[in-house]
Amino acid sequence: MFKKILIANRGEIALRIIRTCKEMGIKTVAVYSKADEESLHVRFADEAVCIGPAPSSESYLKIPNIIAAAEITNADAIHPGYGFLSENSKFSKICAEHDIKFIGASGEQIDKMGDKATAKETMKKAGVPTVPGSQGLLKDVDHAKKEAKKMGYPVMIKATAGGGGKGMRAIWSEEEIEKNFESAVKEATAAFGNGGMYMEKLIEEPRHIEIQVVGDQYGKACHLSERDCSVQRRHQKLTEETPSPFMTDSLREEMGKAAVKAAEYIKYEGAGTIEFLVDKHRNFYFMEMNTRIQVEHPITEQVVDYDLIREQILVAGGVPISGKNYYPKLHSIECRINAEDPYNDFRPSPGKITTLHTPGGHGVRLDTHVYSGYMIPPNYDSMIAKLITTAQTREEAINKMRRALDEFVIEGIKTTIPFHRQLMDHPDYLAGNYTTKFMEGFKMDPKYQDNH
Amino acid sequence: MFKKILIANRGEIALRIIRTCKEMGIKTVAVYSKADEESLHVRFADEAVCIGPAPSSESYLKIPNIIAAAEITNADAIHPGYGFLSENSKFSKICAEHDIKFIGASGEQIDKMGDKATAKETMKKAGVPTVPGSQGLLKDVDHAKKEAKKMGYPVMIKATAGGGGKGMRAIWSEEEIEKNFESAVKEATAAFGNGGMYMEKLIEEPRHIEIQVVGDQYGKACHLSERDCSVQRRHQKLTEETPSPFMTDSLREEMGKAAVKAAEYIKYEGAGTIEFLVDKHRNFYFMEMNTRIQVEHPITEQVVDYDLIREQILVAGGVPISGKNYYPKLHSIECRINAEDPYNDFRPSPGKITTLHTPGGHGVRLDTHVYSGYMIPPNYDSMIAKLITTAQTREEAINKMRRALDEFVIEGIKTTIPFHRQLMDHPDYLAGNYTTKFMEGFKMDPKYQDNH
Repeated sequence: MFKKILIANRGEIALRIIRTCKEMGIKTVAVYSKADEESLHVRFADEAVCIGPAPSSESYLKIPNIIAAAEITNADAIHPGYGFLSENSKFSKICAEHDIKFIGASGEQIDKMGDKATAKETMKKAGVPTVPGSQGLLKDVDHAKKEAKKMGYPVMIKATAGGGGKGMRAIWSEEEIEKNFESAVKEATAAFGNGGMYMEKLIEEPRHIEIQVVGDQYGKACHLSERDCSVQRRHQKLTEETPSPFMTDSLREEMGKAAVKAAEYIKYEGAGTIEFLVDKHRNFYFMEMNTRIQVEHPITEQVVDYDLIREQILVAGGVPISGKNYYPKLHSIECRINAEDPYNDFRPSPGKITTLHTPGGHGVRLDTHVYSGYMIPPNYDSMIAKLITTAQTREEAINKMRRALDEFVIEGIKTTIPFHRQLMDHPDYLAGNYTTKFMEGFKMDPKYQDNH
Repeated sequence: MFKKILIANRGEIALRIIRTCKEMGIKTVAVYSKADEESLHVRFADEAVCIGPAPSSESYLKIPNIIAAAEITNADAIHPGYGFLSENSKFSKICAEHDIKFIGASGEQIDKMGDKATAKETMKKAGVPTVPGSQGLLKDVDHAKKEAKKMGYPVMIKATAGGGGKGMRAIWSEEEIEKNFESAVKEATAAFGNGGMYMEKLIEEPRHIEIQVVGDQYGKACHLSERDCSVQRRHQKLTEETPSPFMTDSLREEMGKAAVKAAEYIKYEGAGTIEFLVDKHRNFYFMEMNTRIQVEHPITEQVVDYDLIREQILVAGGVPISGKNYYPKLHSIECRINAEDPYNDFRPSPGKITTLHTPGGHGVRLDTHVYSGYMIPPNYDSMIAKLITTAQTREEAINKMRRALDEFVIEGIKTTIPFHRQLMDHPDYLAGNYTTKFMEGFKMDPKYQDNH
């Protein structure tokens, strides 16, 4: 097993990784930018190396500095966390060349899944369902009809040069193609000077549901069931839960099987996530694979009694997995607490935390790197804490989240706590009735502004 | 179900109860002494009533003030927590007379278990093993031999007027009785002017292992397995764990059965704990029953996915239990963090907490009422936090505790964190090889003084 791991990251995930390393008796090296000198990951690691100034491009993304830090400190592995270099195949390859184990996928595996089009082709070959689409451009109405018939209604026709909804039409029947095809071509031509159209299956009431997988170095993979991440704002997840309120046992079985098939097809090594879109009929389609640990991994850990970071380290060290799959025994919810003002279009709110009181007790987990007096630098992601509640049932987990949010006091900056408090009272959320479009038209209610 | 519960307590347990009430949608009333005005239980309850000055006898123990607070606020139930009035049968009866539900045992049940001699007699009748002892005083050597033969060697002879070990002898054989009886009588006579002697079975290498039970209003009880609380200093528990490293499946089955029998015999209502002494041969003997929630209840919650406070409230509200027993699925350890100086004979160290950083993350639970800037009053118990770690195995839970203790920063006062850090490195503790005598001769090592 590794003797010393360098963590090429910052914030809560750096701390998260240090914690598991300590528990495993593995020494740790933190790297940090000048803006992060006062960070807890620097304080809690066994060693710390400054790798440059605040901008990520000059520190956390600067491969030579990180490799140099690993070599100086004699680290035998690097954990990249999420973001930054975690899905950079070049970095993974450079680590390998320097005989430093990259705790994650190989450069080749990342490449196979990094580009969406390539990933979709790979998954098709593996036999994993992908969103059906036309082969090349649609020649005319008849061609469009034929393609639509193949994939089944409803479908979307989209301008190949498109964006902003121009030339885009949702189509529910053959007659509608006749009515809409030419007008869409005209609109696209007018907007982009290019009338080329293609077609994709329309995903009705889409939910973002992902399956956690872990693969070992011997081609074996297992899954740890799903996370529902449909509550998103501009493709940023705000809260996640497991099990998904939309899930059924048979769908979980099918999606789990597909995810394991996907991981084993590419001989995936490490923890990864297969993201699917699920439509209202519970058809599911491969969207993309994240070849790294994810922000929302703790909710899976909570319901299956598993330490995903530990497992990443073990498989990177060559330990084989048992191969059994894991199913949720409890219900867990994560709220991402960001230094943002939900009453001002979620604008970032960096600055100094003057008062901090964190929630605790039964069923409450908090992953955070901030403390009272901590200065949140403006340079990085605005997430400052992950609040996770776990209980026997979804209702109890929501009630627990409500009381934990009520206890959480952060002064000096704005946070998304009021948003989560409002969400936990939202009838559609309470009913488990939400899709990726949930946040469209969401309005903050002033009554959640005051925490007490 | 209750609409409003008054919590007749303070500190972490008051907060603990408020949390569960909030999660159940039940309103809460805090009571507080003048010394506790700045306490979190006052801040987080829906209402708060000051019930008197700092000394407990004038506030937290003052029954008329608490009943008045409940009547003023229209509370329909009182949760007494632990300590203070929690095992006061008079208080339980007065609540009943005022038509306020006491969340705990009835006055009669408390009376049956409150006095040790009565409790022992009750348990004997219920068929629960108790520590064998002579009936009345020993007349002479022959009588002593006869009694010893009945209970089996080794035995203890003790002075009935005794204390401080005077007149006390451990006896391993019949010959030793002859050698020791008269000298013990002489010693007792000299020390106390009373040579009366009695005999008890000597418990070899005793461990304090207790079984958590819950009984409902319909005479049904279940158990939730054990907690090992053998690490004690002057009968004060310092750390607890479940499962006990000394436990076997068959012993758990036997002890659980005995505990349920005990609870059902007295038709016990609520959460309670049957404390046993277990000797090195795994014989177990009833010691006493705690007719209340206990400090160390969270470790049970962690390993059986259960909220004991919630269950107390439910059974008090008349909800029947399912009757099934609960078995540990994980391993959990609690360290009691006290405001005491372990390097100075555990002397209390009240005062202001100037800096507080609390541990978190995977498998860490913290129950505390303190915050940065909190002034610990000198009037009450010195416990300021319960740090609980939970993992798949004992070894992992210990490793997790180590790293959590390392992260825990409390400045401004002395705490027992260094003691727990040393304990988690102690070879006998690591081997699970400890009895109630573990702390005898324990010396603090200066190297644990500095937290970082």
